[in-house]
Amino acid sequence: MTAASVIKRRKPDWHVVVAEAGSVASFSACGMPYWVANVVEGGPEALVVVSAEDARNVRGIDLRVHTRATSVDAAARRVTLHSQGRDESINYDHLVLATGAQARVPFDTRGLNGVYALRHLDDAVRLKQDMNRSPPTKAVVVGGGFVGLEMAEAFVELGVPCSLIHSRPTLLSSILDEDLGRLVNERVAAAGVELVVGARADGVEGTDHVSGVRVGKRVIEADVAVLGLGVQPDASLGKEAGCELDPGGRVLVDDGFRTSVARVWACGDAVAVKHRVTGKPAFVPLALHANRAGRIVGENIVGGSESFPGALGTTITRFGELEVAATGLTQAAAQRAGMDAVAATIKSGSKAIYFPGTQKLRARIVAERGSGRLLGAQIVGGKDTAKRIDAMAAALWMGATLKDVEAMDFAYAPPFNPVWDPWAIAARMTARAARS
Amino acid sequence: MTAASVIKRRKPDWHVVVAEAGSVASFSACGMPYWVANVVEGGPEALVVVSAEDARNVRGIDLRVHTRATSVDAAARRVTLHSQGRDESINYDHLVLATGAQARVPFDTRGLNGVYALRHLDDAVRLKQDMNRSPPTKAVVVGGGFVGLEMAEAFVELGVPCSLIHSRPTLLSSILDEDLGRLVNERVAAAGVELVVGARADGVEGTDHVSGVRVGKRVIEADVAVLGLGVQPDASLGKEAGCELDPGGRVLVDDGFRTSVARVWACGDAVAVKHRVTGKPAFVPLALHANRAGRIVGENIVGGSESFPGALGTTITRFGELEVAATGLTQAAAQRAGMDAVAATIKSGSKAIYFPGTQKLRARIVAERGSGRLLGAQIVGGKDTAKRIDAMAAALWMGATLKDVEAMDFAYAPPFNPVWDPWAIAARMTARAARS
Repeated sequence: MTAASVIKRRKPDWHVVVAEAGSVASFSACGMPYWVANVVEGGPEALVVVSAEDARNVRGIDLRVHTRATSVDAAARRVTLHSQGRDESINYDHLVLATGAQARVPFDTRGLNGVYALRHLDDAVRLKQDMNRSPPTKAVVVGGGFVGLEMAEAFVELGVPCSLIHSRPTLLSSILDEDLGRLVNERVAAAGVELVVGARADGVEGTDHVSGVRVGKRVIEADVAVLGLGVQPDASLGKEAGCELDPGGRVLVDDGFRTSVARVWACGDAVAVKHRVTGKPAFVPLALHANRAGRIVGENIVGGSESFPGALGTTITRFGELEVAATGLTQAAAQRAGMDAVAATIKSGSKAIYFPGTQKLRARIVAERGSGRLLGAQIVGGKDTAKRIDAMAAALWMGATLKDVEAMDFAYAPPFNPVWDPWAIAARMTARAARS
Repeated sequence: MTAASVIKRRKPDWHVVVAEAGSVASFSACGMPYWVANVVEGGPEALVVVSAEDARNVRGIDLRVHTRATSVDAAARRVTLHSQGRDESINYDHLVLATGAQARVPFDTRGLNGVYALRHLDDAVRLKQDMNRSPPTKAVVVGGGFVGLEMAEAFVELGVPCSLIHSRPTLLSSILDEDLGRLVNERVAAAGVELVVGARADGVEGTDHVSGVRVGKRVIEADVAVLGLGVQPDASLGKEAGCELDPGGRVLVDDGFRTSVARVWACGDAVAVKHRVTGKPAFVPLALHANRAGRIVGENIVGGSESFPGALGTTITRFGELEVAATGLTQAAAQRAGMDAVAATIKSGSKAIYFPGTQKLRARIVAERGSGRLLGAQIVGGKDTAKRIDAMAAALWMGATLKDVEAMDFAYAPPFNPVWDPWAIAARMTARAARS
């Protein structure tokens, strides 16, 4: 939708068709757990970013919902759209594959009711309707990443007893090293969520409706199960169009989101983008990058020459009043990538020590030994602490070293910070760790 | 105190004397308005950072309060300390001049009671004691910088009617361009403070006790008057020691805080430091830089070779729930410095538009036309928005351009940010302004 909007803004007389398989083309996926939890009020339209009406009447996009692109003939520059039992074949000058990713479901859910993978707004609507119709008594969330953690929080908010299964020992393990991840475990457990960590879900139990989730020999009772096990890119249409794929099975694109096939572009969660720390392609299925990619594709189709500047994978979330954010690589990820990564975690307050309302926080910096180059940063703390990650995202973006971060001139006043900023102290401690 | 602490940590057997003219050597000056307002509770010891007891017993510093250094003989390496009517002459291997700055008082206050310049903790204690003894009925604050604004807020908190006089049309004019400054004016006026802007205080009226502040022909009634007109460095001891002064009348130092006289160092508010945007010496009397300078002096005295990395003058404050922060140069300041500076201000929310509790904010970026080099940034917004300035402080520190900022990978999730970060949008708008 971003690509389509940019094109129509630049070339109002062009005919831009958007084929959307679901009922809504542009919505805030990240808002779904909060809408399910009734933190965001109103109907599902609260999460709609561009309504079909606005897309058509204001932006002039020929948006077709409940319409699936089923095949591509790149030689003939033709795509087939399927809607309401009928096929339509339309020609294109440019084809944009924004097919996204699908929820990863590593076991057969056997068509059981009560099992959800929150991917499209329709999934959230179905979950919420089902829960209103028949309030659940016990939830199991599979996966302790963002969706999993946020859905566990939603069940806590809704007063539904909940178990959370995660394959690693600590939650949010893709963005937090274990020492900080443990703080998240503790907070989640303190909220009454049963944590089942270091364990994999093997399947679901039940007839018609889910009755439990199987973890090895144990079956964890559930009348609602939510799977938050990440996503896998949907490259099927790209493959059919003859596009080269990358080793991860995604449509291969250059920095301007051109595929190997002329006039076929791909962007969003269907492709890999350049990671700014490793310099290598990475799968970073986050809203900002998809939006940015859409804009670049739109500009390039109308004759621009923009390229994707790279991603750090900066992320942020919360569980109750515990906030979590990270950017770049964890120490564990950096070491897996073969880097000599050192790290240190420090404790700080969010305000001057004597100031009322000071929140505790811990800040962690990961850097390359020797060069001192920043590789990543993590923060876990109380209310209104996590957006501090942006300072490290900016530093990391610019290729800062520990010495830079230690010297940076961050804002201090008693209601907002200690004199010595947590990041400056973390940088100093990481430099010390690197020397030892 | 920071220099002394570093030296004792590195060289425990050295004899380190600290002569402090007041009663407290290490306190949070920035906390004083909040302590006066009873936002910070407890006695004045709440603001003490290092108590005399800790300085002596834990850190091993020979701290002498109510002791003023009155003269220096650099050739003989001797300093005279005056205390309780007696002079004592002591020899030194190294002398650190951390004499700070004095409140600027541009007119004769004629020894009137009820007139305060909040500089030392003793000033705050006196103000609070006097107000407790005889609650004021009308306050005038002279100066709409940080101290002035924070003291106006304190009087609002205390329920004392207040007028605020500021020489420029908009408040906080050293850190905010006028469009953002107007928002501060509006909020301060909405809180019931009488704003007298674009006007200078010419003097105080009264016999024994202040009765008013004179602005041209008008006398603004007051039984308490607080002057927040900035500070001027106290270089008198440095001058006597034979140290070269800079054109601003401050002790001239190199990046390691060495003066022109051997074994005499100067740091803190008594000296100028290098501004990282202009590359020129600047007077930036802020806590962080004084602390950092103290550390560097300490390290260098024991044989290190550290240098001050430069200052951006990043600042932050609040008035009620309105938060304000800035880093680098305003457009006005950049233009005064001869730069071709462009700027743009954008409006944004602090969270996803549909998320409850979204705060309004405005972000402004100042950049050099042509190069696109970032020169400064400003933010004014609701609760928990202003610490976002650190992202721009980091970007500015690293020499980022508008293109960098627009591309940066800031943290997004609905409870924390819109998908497009305010800084990214502000950078795009500033780039657009630069092209037009």
